[in-house]
Amino acid sequence: MSGPKILETISVQKCFGGTQGVYRHESAETGCAMRFGLFLPPQAERGKVPLLYWLSGLTCTEENFVVKAGVQRVAAELGIAIAVPDTSPRGLGYPGEDDAYDFGSGAGFYVDATEAPWHHGYRMYSYVTKELPALIGEKFPVDPARVGIFGHSMGGHGALTIALKNPASYKSLSAFSPIVSPMRCPWGEKALTGYLGADRATWRDYDATALIEARGWQGPPILVDQGDADPFLERELKPELLREACAAKGVSLDLRMREGYDHSYFFIASFIEDHLRFHAKYL
Amino acid sequence: MSGPKILETISVQKCFGGTQGVYRHESAETGCAMRFGLFLPPQAERGKVPLLYWLSGLTCTEENFVVKAGVQRVAAELGIAIAVPDTSPRGLGYPGEDDAYDFGSGAGFYVDATEAPWHHGYRMYSYVTKELPALIGEKFPVDPARVGIFGHSMGGHGALTIALKNPASYKSLSAFSPIVSPMRCPWGEKALTGYLGADRATWRDYDATALIEARGWQGPPILVDQGDADPFLERELKPELLREACAAKGVSLDLRMREGYDHSYFFIASFIEDHLRFHAKYL
Repeated sequence: MSGPKILETISVQKCFGGTQGVYRHESAETGCAMRFGLFLPPQAERGKVPLLYWLSGLTCTEENFVVKAGVQRVAAELGIAIAVPDTSPRGLGYPGEDDAYDFGSGAGFYVDATEAPWHHGYRMYSYVTKELPALIGEKFPVDPARVGIFGHSMGGHGALTIALKNPASYKSLSAFSPIVSPMRCPWGEKALTGYLGADRATWRDYDATALIEARGWQGPPILVDQGDADPFLERELKPELLREACAAKGVSLDLRMREGYDHSYFFIASFIEDHLRFHAKYL
Repeated sequence: MSGPKILETISVQKCFGGTQGVYRHESAETGCAMRFGLFLPPQAERGKVPLLYWLSGLTCTEENFVVKAGVQRVAAELGIAIAVPDTSPRGLGYPGEDDAYDFGSGAGFYVDATEAPWHHGYRMYSYVTKELPALIGEKFPVDPARVGIFGHSMGGHGALTIALKNPASYKSLSAFSPIVSPMRCPWGEKALTGYLGADRATWRDYDATALIEARGWQGPPILVDQGDADPFLERELKPELLREACAAKGVSLDLRMREGYDHSYFFIASFIEDHLRFHAKYL
């Protein structure tokens, strides 16, 4: 982790006056090469810009959000950089790593695993909160004091839990269709059991509703968009649990139920501008 | 071709207040099942809306533009439907059909082939100009008197040649990075030889510059965006040939060279709004 960091450029393409890059580096946290996307708005040519992290959902790589969300247009207007990490280590070779869409590759759940063998490389929490910010801060003109975070589904869970645990590091927080309580849904129970073991007491540190109960949130309002035609709404996402936790602790939550929208990037694209303008108010 | 047409819905998803659909039907022209994307803006709930055809480039299916271009936001605002056909027949089983990215599958070049075996199903010109409009007109609330066309690369060639040959059917015309003279570039020479045979006289009917020389264009100005960092600019695209042909015939061309942009969907997304607002003026 010490010494100069090496960053390989996969591609840099002009987009809305800025540049959409894809980069690769050897990660000490995950023990493998990791890719991430970074959009730099045109304002980055003249000085440091605020930075917004996007955490993606199950099965995604860094590419999905970069090509499908239409984020660059508004980010270029507002002068915000957008960082998009991958969703797990890749190719570590653990038994069963590629067997399911909701565990292992593409499903890191933004935790630091404690169960073998996952604890060696499935350290997406530390990767996203420490290693990647240090690398981006060293290599790109971003302002480490003006950072926000958002994400979708598993990545909405990631954004919520990461910001709630690190309120000094993230000035703004929003999510699309987040898994708000992985302790209380099948996706989350499978992942937390696999990565953290059977002791549910340890899961509370990666459950947004439990974190709100334990710590509250002194930051600005939390913005959440949720489609009411989302096929995962009742079984996995359960936004009412977040509403209840926020209400109990006096946390300001702007939960917007969107009629007829599903879980896809067509939904995300439809409201991405709202989220960027929300973050820009606080960054 | 007679009798009621059967249309299968693959998916319909809410997007920017409208719906992004993907549909499949058995095509008489191509002899196989064809898929297309159709975005209907919210205005289509109240009556017929204008329709803009997008023709995609080499290797694309109907999906690329639908998920990457960010077109739905502006189309929803302006009340324009967007139809996106596939770029070739699929799975006809002709020898060599899947051997190259620039001929056969994904590379129909919007011609009606005359060479065997391609002449049986590689009839994308008739598919795009006749069969698909008849189907869409029967099944969806679009106004057949308010239709425009645009496309990218091979699809820019398709949009130009189709509109130039059918000026009564298309009220507006634009392109991104079009192949403006397939008779004079390697991609085009390969495709036209394969689909039409070695007699170059027959090629002129599918060459935008030759069509402008032969027929002119009485419609509104033609809008073309072209990145100056496009790796295919000098060898394949040659926008100067279009500029020369238009100048010689007094055709109004707005050719915008875009500094630093390449051939990708990041380029298309950056200027898609300009193109939709251009088409909206004439539709």
